[in-house]
Amino acid sequence: MIQKNKMRVVGQRFPKIDGIDKVTGVAQFGADVKIPGTLYAKVLRSPVAHANIVKIDTSRAEAFPGVKAVITGEDFAYPLNESGNAPSALENQSREKILARTKVLFQGHPVAVVAATSAMIAEEALKLIDVEYDQLPHVLDIATTMSADAPLLHPDLRTKYKGDVEHVASNIAEHQEFIRGDAEEALKNAHVVVERTFDTGTVHQGYIEPDSEAAWVRHDGSVTVWANTQGTHLQRRELAHVLSIPIKMINVIPTEVGGAFGGKESVRVVALCAALSRKTRFPVRLSLGREEIIRAGWPSTSIKCSMKVGADEQGNIVGVESWIAFNSGAYPGAPIQSAVRRVFSHYRVENMKVDAFDVITNRPPNSAYRAPGATPVAFAMESIIDELADKLGMDPLEFRYKNVSRDGDLMPDGNTLPTINLDRVLDEVRQHACWTTPLDGPNQGRGIALGMWTMPGGTISCQVNVNYDGTLNLVLGTVDLSTTRATLAQIAAEECDLDFDEINVVIGDTDTVAYTDATAGDRVTYVASKAVITACQDLILNMKKRVAQQFSASIEDVKYEMKNFTINEAPEKSMTWFDLALKSAMPHSGEGGGALTGFASASELMHDEAIAPNGSAHVADVEVDPETGKVQILRYTVFQDVGRAINPAGVEGQMQGGAVQGIGWALSEEIQYDDDGKVENASLLDYRIPTILDVPSIDTVVLEYPSPDHPYGIRGVGQVPIAPPAATIGNAIFRATGARLYQLPMKPERVRLAIAALMQSDDPQPN
Amino acid sequence: MIQKNKMRVVGQRFPKIDGIDKVTGVAQFGADVKIPGTLYAKVLRSPVAHANIVKIDTSRAEAFPGVKAVITGEDFAYPLNESGNAPSALENQSREKILARTKVLFQGHPVAVVAATSAMIAEEALKLIDVEYDQLPHVLDIATTMSADAPLLHPDLRTKYKGDVEHVASNIAEHQEFIRGDAEEALKNAHVVVERTFDTGTVHQGYIEPDSEAAWVRHDGSVTVWANTQGTHLQRRELAHVLSIPIKMINVIPTEVGGAFGGKESVRVVALCAALSRKTRFPVRLSLGREEIIRAGWPSTSIKCSMKVGADEQGNIVGVESWIAFNSGAYPGAPIQSAVRRVFSHYRVENMKVDAFDVITNRPPNSAYRAPGATPVAFAMESIIDELADKLGMDPLEFRYKNVSRDGDLMPDGNTLPTINLDRVLDEVRQHACWTTPLDGPNQGRGIALGMWTMPGGTISCQVNVNYDGTLNLVLGTVDLSTTRATLAQIAAEECDLDFDEINVVIGDTDTVAYTDATAGDRVTYVASKAVITACQDLILNMKKRVAQQFSASIEDVKYEMKNFTINEAPEKSMTWFDLALKSAMPHSGEGGGALTGFASASELMHDEAIAPNGSAHVADVEVDPETGKVQILRYTVFQDVGRAINPAGVEGQMQGGAVQGIGWALSEEIQYDDDGKVENASLLDYRIPTILDVPSIDTVVLEYPSPDHPYGIRGVGQVPIAPPAATIGNAIFRATGARLYQLPMKPERVRLAIAALMQSDDPQPN
Repeated sequence: MIQKNKMRVVGQRFPKIDGIDKVTGVAQFGADVKIPGTLYAKVLRSPVAHANIVKIDTSRAEAFPGVKAVITGEDFAYPLNESGNAPSALENQSREKILARTKVLFQGHPVAVVAATSAMIAEEALKLIDVEYDQLPHVLDIATTMSADAPLLHPDLRTKYKGDVEHVASNIAEHQEFIRGDAEEALKNAHVVVERTFDTGTVHQGYIEPDSEAAWVRHDGSVTVWANTQGTHLQRRELAHVLSIPIKMINVIPTEVGGAFGGKESVRVVALCAALSRKTRFPVRLSLGREEIIRAGWPSTSIKCSMKVGADEQGNIVGVESWIAFNSGAYPGAPIQSAVRRVFSHYRVENMKVDAFDVITNRPPNSAYRAPGATPVAFAMESIIDELADKLGMDPLEFRYKNVSRDGDLMPDGNTLPTINLDRVLDEVRQHACWTTPLDGPNQGRGIALGMWTMPGGTISCQVNVNYDGTLNLVLGTVDLSTTRATLAQIAAEECDLDFDEINVVIGDTDTVAYTDATAGDRVTYVASKAVITACQDLILNMKKRVAQQFSASIEDVKYEMKNFTINEAPEKSMTWFDLALKSAMPHSGEGGGALTGFASASELMHDEAIAPNGSAHVADVEVDPETGKVQILRYTVFQDVGRAINPAGVEGQMQGGAVQGIGWALSEEIQYDDDGKVENASLLDYRIPTILDVPSIDTVVLEYPSPDHPYGIRGVGQVPIAPPAATIGNAIFRATGARLYQLPMKPERVRLAIAALMQSDDPQPN
Repeated sequence: MIQKNKMRVVGQRFPKIDGIDKVTGVAQFGADVKIPGTLYAKVLRSPVAHANIVKIDTSRAEAFPGVKAVITGEDFAYPLNESGNAPSALENQSREKILARTKVLFQGHPVAVVAATSAMIAEEALKLIDVEYDQLPHVLDIATTMSADAPLLHPDLRTKYKGDVEHVASNIAEHQEFIRGDAEEALKNAHVVVERTFDTGTVHQGYIEPDSEAAWVRHDGSVTVWANTQGTHLQRRELAHVLSIPIKMINVIPTEVGGAFGGKESVRVVALCAALSRKTRFPVRLSLGREEIIRAGWPSTSIKCSMKVGADEQGNIVGVESWIAFNSGAYPGAPIQSAVRRVFSHYRVENMKVDAFDVITNRPPNSAYRAPGATPVAFAMESIIDELADKLGMDPLEFRYKNVSRDGDLMPDGNTLPTINLDRVLDEVRQHACWTTPLDGPNQGRGIALGMWTMPGGTISCQVNVNYDGTLNLVLGTVDLSTTRATLAQIAAEECDLDFDEINVVIGDTDTVAYTDATAGDRVTYVASKAVITACQDLILNMKKRVAQQFSASIEDVKYEMKNFTINEAPEKSMTWFDLALKSAMPHSGEGGGALTGFASASELMHDEAIAPNGSAHVADVEVDPETGKVQILRYTVFQDVGRAINPAGVEGQMQGGAVQGIGWALSEEIQYDDDGKVENASLLDYRIPTILDVPSIDTVVLEYPSPDHPYGIRGVGQVPIAPPAATIGNAIFRATGARLYQLPMKPERVRLAIAALMQSDDPQPN
C-alpha cells in the first residue's frame, strides 16, 4: 500500500473538537437527556448473591402515587424473539443478565425497576416491592467454582471446549487451548525455568460518567433511544434481541460518553428504560449512581494464573506453559482471545501451551476494560520474564530484546505478526535517559515491561457532504471516546486539501448512518480513517467528473490541488472547490448536478495476519517505604509504536491515560467482595482510583513505525498503554526491595508483608 | 427512458406512514419541541402600516422579572455577512423583512421580540417596550402604488426590467415581458375579442399548524434549529445569511409540518429564536398564534389583471394580451414566472404579449401558495375563454379542445411542452357523467376550466442503508408534506423487490443528509423518486458485487429477484438478501465486507423542455340563491393527468385538497385590510376557509399518461388542482345566473350585486 507523504494537516496538534463543549457543560451526556414528560427509573437489586426468586409482589409499589409502571423479569420473558423464533438459551441469558427472572446470581442483580414522575418517588417505591428469595449456596472465587461440587449457577451451562460442548454441567463456560510445539518437553529440557502463580483483583473501568440512558417507545412500538454507548448499531441490535423489537423500529441516538473503556458496549440500562416506556408510552430515563455501578456494574474480570517459562543457556526462551482462569462473574464473557493472543505474542516461543478458562461466579457480570484481560496476564508474563532474566544473570532489557517477537513471528492463535517493532522500541528505551540515568536514593528500583496490541476487525461507515460554502460535513457512525472527531477531521482535511476548521464532524444515529461497529479495541482511527480516505477520494472523483463535464474534458485530465480543479493545468480551465460547492446547492435550480458527496464503509477482516500490531515498553522508577509498603512512582515513561501520530496531542493523551489506569490497577484499585459477595468499597473514597498525587507526569515517547497495511501507516494507540504498568511497577518494586508480588493490586499492606516475608526467606536480593 | 412495467408495490394504496402518529398526537410538530430550559418568545408588532422608527426603548421590558432578552432590528444589523463581506441591500432587506430596523412597512411588522421564562411573561413585557414612530403615508393597492407620486416604501428600489435596472425610484420591483408574434396586430384582425379586468383578494395558505420553531445557539456559536419548514437546507442557508453564521455551524432538524403550501419555505420565526438564543444561550421557541399569522404572516399575492383574447371565425385563438400586477406586500417576491408560464401555456397562441409586475405595498409580505399565482391568473384566463366561446357560439369544452396546447407547443418563456395531454383530459371530460348528466333544477349552472403545471428543477438527495434484518432505511432530505414517506417507500420497495413494510423512512437533518431542495412546486415525488431509484440500483449493484465475490463469479452473472441473488440461476450458488444483510452487520467481524448502502442525488435542471407537464380540467355544478347570492356547489369533479399514480390514495387526496383550497379562494377566502392597512378578519371565524358544509365530496378522475422523461412516468400532482376552481365556479355561476364575476372571492354580496346589476344591463342571458 502506498504511504502518503504530503501530510499538511495530519501530524499537527489540533484540540479536541468537543473539548470546550465538555468543559463548559454544553455537551449532552446521558443525564442531560430531558424530554418533557420523562419518567425516572430506579432499580431494586438483589440483597443476596444467589437465590431463586419465589415471588415478586409489585402491587404496593404500583399503587404508590407517582409510580407509572414497575417491571420485573416477566416483562422480558417474550415468547418470541424479534425474528419471530423462540428465544435461544443465550438470548434468555442476555435478558436475565439485565433483569433477573427466576434467579438472582449476584448481589445487586436487578429484580425490579420502577418508573415514576420523580426519581425520589421511584426510590421510595422500591421499598414497597416485596420479593421472596429462596437462598442458594453461592460461590465467589475461581478455585471453588471450578471444583466438581460447586453450586451450579446456570444448571444448563456446559463447557465449550474447542468449539464442542461437554456434557457435564459446570460453572466453566469455556475452555480454550493454544498449543504450539511441545511445551512440556521444552520446559523439561530448559536450562532455567521459572514458575509462579498470580492472582489479580477485579477493577472497575472508572469512567467519570455513571451509566445514564433514556428510551421512548411510541404508540406504534417504535423506539427512540438516547444511548450512553460505545456502539449505536450494537446497542440497536442487542435491544432488538432483548425486547423482541424489529430492528427497523429502533433508532439509537448517541449521547456524549463520559468515559467507557469497554464498560459501555453491550446494552444495559437502556433496555430497562425501553421496557418501562413500552408499558407507559412516556420517555423513561435511568441514571445510575456511582455506588450502583461499582456494586453491580460490569467491571473487569479478575484472573488466577499459573505461568511457567523456561530458557536455554544462551538466554533464548524455549517454552511457555500457562493456565489462566478468568472470573467473569455471573455470566460468561471472559476476554480469553483478547488477552492470550496479545500477551503471548510478546516473545518468540517455539513451544507453547496455554489453557484458558471462562469461569462463572456469583459476582456481577464482567465486561470489557481497555485491552481486555491484557493487564493481569501481562503482569504474570512480564514478571516471570524479569525473574528469568535474573536467573540467567541477564539485563532485563537485553533478555527481552533477545527474545521479543520479530516481524513474521506467530501469535498464539497461529496468525502472523506482519510487523511488530518491539526490538526497535527497546532500542529506543536502551538509549533513553529514563533507562540510562542512575537512580538516586535508597529503596528505589527501576522496572520495565512490554505490551502489545493488535486490533480486532470491524466495519465503520462514513459519509462526506459538501456544504454550499465549501465546508465539509463528515458524518460518522462511531462515537468519539478519544479525540476521534479531531483525528478524523484531520484526515478528511488532508485528503480534500481543506483546512481543519472546514470540516464539520457529525456523529449520526442509527436511522441515518450505515452499519458501524462499536468504538472499541483500537478499531476506530485505523478503520474509520480508511473509510474517511475512501469517502473523500470518492467525493473528489465526483467533483472531478463535474469539472470534466463543465469543460467537456476527460476526467483523467482534471487535477485537484489546494481547493482548485484545473484541466491540464490550464488556468482558464479551472474551477475552485468553492465554486463547485456553491453550484451544487443552488436552491431550486438543479444547476449544479446534485449534491456533492462521498460514501464509504471500511471493513477490516482478521486474516492470517494481525492488523497493524503495535508494541510498547514502559519504564518506571519507584521508591518503596519499607515500613508502610507505600509505593511512590518517581518517574514513568511510555514508549509506544503508534505507526503514525495523526494528532500527537491525542496520541500522548491516550498513552498517558492508559498508563494511569494501569497504575491504578497495579497499586490501588480493586473491588472488594465480602464472603457474602457484597461489595465493601462502593465509593470513590474506598475504591482508590489514582489521583494527581499518586502519579507523576507520564513521559511519552511516540515512535512512528508506519504500518504497511494502512495508507497513513496508522496503528492503534488506545489499548496497549494499560497493559504493561502492573508488571512494570511490580518489577520496579522488586528492584527496590527484593520482594516480588504476585497479586494485584500491590497495595501497601501486601508490599509490606512481602518485604517482611523476605526477611525470613532466602530469595535473591535486589540488584 | 425505459418505462418500468413490473409495478408490484407501485400503484397500491398504502396508508400515510405518519398518519397514526399525527392523529394520535405522537408526531412532533413545532410546538412539541420542548427542550428543558427553553425560553418563550413573543413579538411586538407595528400598529401602523408605514413609519420610520425614531426610537425603541426596551429597558423597561428587559428589567421585567423573567425576561431574559429583547431583540430589535439592531440585533440583525451585522456589519459582515457569513462570508465575511458587507451585506448586500438584498441581504439587509431579507433581515428587515423578519425584524424591522429603521422602518416599519406593514401593520404587524415585527419591531422587537422578547424571550422570557414563560409565554405570559413575554407577552406582558411587550407592553413595556416603548417605540416612537414617525408615521409615513402608506399605500395598499396596486393602482396607487404604481402611480408616479406614490409614497416610496424602499427609496432605493429600482425596477428590474428584462434583467436591467431602471433608474427611477418606484414601488415596482420588477417588470417582466413575455412576447411572441404580434399580439396587437392579431387582436386587431381577430373575429371576436373579449377584454376584461380582474381583481383578486389576498388569501392565506390556511395551514392547520401556525408557525412554531425553536433554536438553540451554543457557547461556540453553533446553532441547532427545530424548523417547521418545507426545506431544511434552504432554511439553513437563509439563516446563515440573516444571522451571519457560517453554514457549517447550523444544523436544521425538521419537525413535522402541519401544512405549509408554500408558506413555510423561507426562514421566518426561527431567525428570531436564534437571535434571542444567541443573546441568552438558552433554547428559544416562538409559537405564533392564528391571529398573528393571518394578520402579519406571509399570504398569497393578490392581482390586478387585464386580459384580452381574440379568436378567428373558425374558433382559433389568434392573440392574447395581458397586463398583470401582483401585489407582493412590503417586499418583492411575486410569482410572475410561476403563474405566467403555466397559465399562458393552456392554449396554443401564436401571438402573445404579457406584461407582469411585481409591486410593493404596505401590506404583509407575500410568500408562495400552492401553484403560486396560478389560481388568480387562471381565473382571468379561463373566464375569458368561456366568454369567448359564448361569443363564438361554441361549446366551452369544444372551444377549449380546439385550442389547448398539444405536445411540442411552446410555453410563454419559449420552452417546449414535451407532452401535455390537455386534449386527452378533455376527451375524458366529454364522456363523463359529470359533463353529460343534465342539470336538474333552477339557478343551476355547470362550469369548466383548465389548469396545468410543470415543476421547477431542483436537487434531492437520499441514501438507503440495509439493516441487519434485511429491512431498509430510506434516508431522505425532503420533509413529508403529502404522503411522500409512503410514496417513496413504495418506490424503494419496488426497486429492491422488498415489501412496503420493510422500508423504514427517515427524514434526516442538514447535518447528516446531503443537499436537498425544499418540498415545493411538485418537485418531490418526481425528483426524489429518481434519487430513490438510482440509490436502490446503486445498492443492488453493491450487493451483486458481494455475491459475485463470494462465488468468484462475474458481476454480470448475478441475477437479483424476489430477495434472492443467484449466479447463472444455479440454485446452489445463491444468497438471499437477508443473508447478505446479516453478514454486512456482524459485530466486530468485518466479515460482510462493510455496510450495504446506496446513495444518489438527483438533480433536475430546467432545459428547453418543460419537465413532466401535467394538465387538468375541473367541472363544477353550482346552484346560486339569487336573493342572497350564496353559491352552493352541488358536484365537483377533478380530472388530472398524474403520469403514474404511485399511491392512488395520496394522489386523490392531493387532487381533493387542492380543489377545496381553490374553492375557498373562489368563494369565501380573503384577508380584508381597512384603509390603514389593518387586517379586519384575523380569525378563522371571520376568515372563511371552506368547512365540510361548504364543499361536496370531490370526485377524482385519475388519468395516467406516463411522462416519458421519468422511469415510472411520474408527473407532479400537488400544485395544479388549486388553479382551476375559481374559474370553474365563476363559469358555473355565469351559467346559473347570467352574471359574470371579475373579482375574487365571489362572496354572496358580490354575486348578489352582479345579479342585481344584470337586471339593469343588456349582457347576454345564460344559455
